[in-house]
Amino acid sequence: MVVGIDKAASAADSVVSSAKKTPTAIPSDSVINLARGDPTMYQPYWRRMGDKCTVVIPGHDLMSYFSDPGNLCWFLMPELDDAIRRLHRVVGNAVVDDDRYVIVGTGSTQLFQAVLFALSSPQNPDTEPLSVVAAAPFYSSYPEETEFLRSGLYKWAGDAYSFDKDGAYVEVITSPNNPDGTIREAVANREGGKLIHDLAYYWPQYTPITSKADYDIMLFTFSKATGHAGSRIGWAIVKDKQMAAKMVKYIELSSIGVSKEAQLRAAKILEVIAVDCASSGPDKEENFFEHGHRLMSDRWEKLREVVKRNGVFSLPKYPRDFCNFKGKDTDSSPAFAWLKAKDGLNCDNLLREFKIITRGGPNFGVDSEYTRVSMLSLDEEFNLFLERLAEIKGATN
Amino acid sequence: MVVGIDKAASAADSVVSSAKKTPTAIPSDSVINLARGDPTMYQPYWRRMGDKCTVVIPGHDLMSYFSDPGNLCWFLMPELDDAIRRLHRVVGNAVVDDDRYVIVGTGSTQLFQAVLFALSSPQNPDTEPLSVVAAAPFYSSYPEETEFLRSGLYKWAGDAYSFDKDGAYVEVITSPNNPDGTIREAVANREGGKLIHDLAYYWPQYTPITSKADYDIMLFTFSKATGHAGSRIGWAIVKDKQMAAKMVKYIELSSIGVSKEAQLRAAKILEVIAVDCASSGPDKEENFFEHGHRLMSDRWEKLREVVKRNGVFSLPKYPRDFCNFKGKDTDSSPAFAWLKAKDGLNCDNLLREFKIITRGGPNFGVDSEYTRVSMLSLDEEFNLFLERLAEIKGATN
Repeated sequence: MVVGIDKAASAADSVVSSAKKTPTAIPSDSVINLARGDPTMYQPYWRRMGDKCTVVIPGHDLMSYFSDPGNLCWFLMPELDDAIRRLHRVVGNAVVDDDRYVIVGTGSTQLFQAVLFALSSPQNPDTEPLSVVAAAPFYSSYPEETEFLRSGLYKWAGDAYSFDKDGAYVEVITSPNNPDGTIREAVANREGGKLIHDLAYYWPQYTPITSKADYDIMLFTFSKATGHAGSRIGWAIVKDKQMAAKMVKYIELSSIGVSKEAQLRAAKILEVIAVDCASSGPDKEENFFEHGHRLMSDRWEKLREVVKRNGVFSLPKYPRDFCNFKGKDTDSSPAFAWLKAKDGLNCDNLLREFKIITRGGPNFGVDSEYTRVSMLSLDEEFNLFLERLAEIKGATN
Repeated sequence: MVVGIDKAASAADSVVSSAKKTPTAIPSDSVINLARGDPTMYQPYWRRMGDKCTVVIPGHDLMSYFSDPGNLCWFLMPELDDAIRRLHRVVGNAVVDDDRYVIVGTGSTQLFQAVLFALSSPQNPDTEPLSVVAAAPFYSSYPEETEFLRSGLYKWAGDAYSFDKDGAYVEVITSPNNPDGTIREAVANREGGKLIHDLAYYWPQYTPITSKADYDIMLFTFSKATGHAGSRIGWAIVKDKQMAAKMVKYIELSSIGVSKEAQLRAAKILEVIAVDCASSGPDKEENFFEHGHRLMSDRWEKLREVVKRNGVFSLPKYPRDFCNFKGKDTDSSPAFAWLKAKDGLNCDNLLREFKIITRGGPNFGVDSEYTRVSMLSLDEEFNLFLERLAEIKGATN
């Protein structure tokens, strides 16, 4: 199979014309970086919201280390706590009863590490580090975040499917999964297992909301929920008080809390979405998640069309399901496309030849015929991506 | 020696009356927590500044992970980089030539850990963890921040004065020192030593600025410079590119960057201070550091008076020195009072009897006759602290 550029590829016509409609600032020959899931796609929506989500912070505000000294999570701002619980209630994607602890972190990245610390300490110095596993393909940062400090408390132990050690371990379950968008459950299922549920993508724009998640430790992030990656705000919902207290300790020791400016802004934006989603009436405008789902569905439809026509790649299929939030059957439209190149080609390398940077399968614990492509870029980039993808044509077609 | 409450202590009179002048919201029998250095003292100053430092952030702003993709520290906002360098030039407390790297962190707490990672990795798995030392009394969080993850890369090795191991090690030099306010230099001075200079308190309100600091790795924090602890912004100034790149890697892995809202606000506030400090003229108002130094000098004078009169405690003495920033000889007025109780009494426990919470000597690697008291509380709390301190009277007096 020979892969080459087909400049006149008719398969790309619809895409090219849609791209041409959009005024673009991106030179047509520039490299498009879709390796990181930078959620810039949502920016135009927030721009249209005008001043509705603007925060104004005077110089004397938010000065103290403390946000809520009486709360177990003393650095969590009460308005953020309220907004998080309110949004989950409106969306119906997680149980946030009053007995659950909300812990804020500098992104869910910091919280993931806080959970590892909480699950593994205090520990007898003679004890083996706690094994951390996830089913492949798993989020590419888990191994490095677990390993980089060579902690004696925990260590990365690879693919949960092949984990066969006795004793305590931690399984991270990302659902919908990053990179491949599948709905997941624990797979190791051995005695002594503790579970972390990373639910970063369990929001209505990406997947049908089929039930309220009700796990011991659930992680969410502002980045993927609303697109505000630059704020570095994540939150955990935790059942056990001791666990929550240890996570707070971790965040105290690693950064003495979490930026209040970012918390204030997250509180404002989550609150606005929750109010919008809860409002009704004939003149009701499309809410954030409806908007996001419409964009994502549209992108996935276009992507599937290009992939079908050029015959070089394949994509996972997702079951249609009833979404409690939307009140109807909906398709999944994950935040990443998990592209597989046919005939065992190195998918990441192939796309790089076409100036598309993605993150290859080996980063996620699987073969190089797979690669992960962000679906959350700006329109201009996404359209250019489709245009270039359509130009890749196997000689076998 | 018997210590008791002397309700009519004349030594306290001047203090009590000064406290009474300030309208206070603190019940007179409440516990005052001066254990953490929460810099709320500066709040009235920033309130008086009105809108000058207000930031306004619309909902669509600051969304991307990236701040400056072409910069080694890709998450650092260029306006913060500029404001940091400008302020150091105006104050004259650190060399910030163009060949130095500025790295932003979630407080200098995250940066301290980033430096440990950068100095110790990559490392041969058979190598002993790098020893981290500081001269006692040292900042109470260093041991725990170094130890809590049981890293194989580095480990806490205690007081630098008694360190006698061969091979590579790291010495942390805090100057002015937390807790005792002294100006410091390296003390271990063995072969293979690397140095981290924590200059959190090297600002004109706390100490005379005698020269531009010019070390390999210097840490500063927004909390102590301006009082904005809730923002969690710190910065490092680093000479070596490889070191800087590894620190960036640490921050990527631990939190994928630093809140942009906090960075934007820090940039604004540091810029306003720098412009104020650089301006001149007959009508020029007191700048932030002049204001801070005046408050701190006043507090130290009152504290020394009470300590002198009641005879139960002693305080360190600091040399007067020429401050390049103020252009005259000035006294030190450290952010913490390092109180020593006479006759070997447990100083922290003694103050607790008077409902004053401080952080005792053993946290800093020394005896319990010492304790650290924050000098940065609100006026009401500080005055109540003095009032209660004056009530402690040794029977020997």
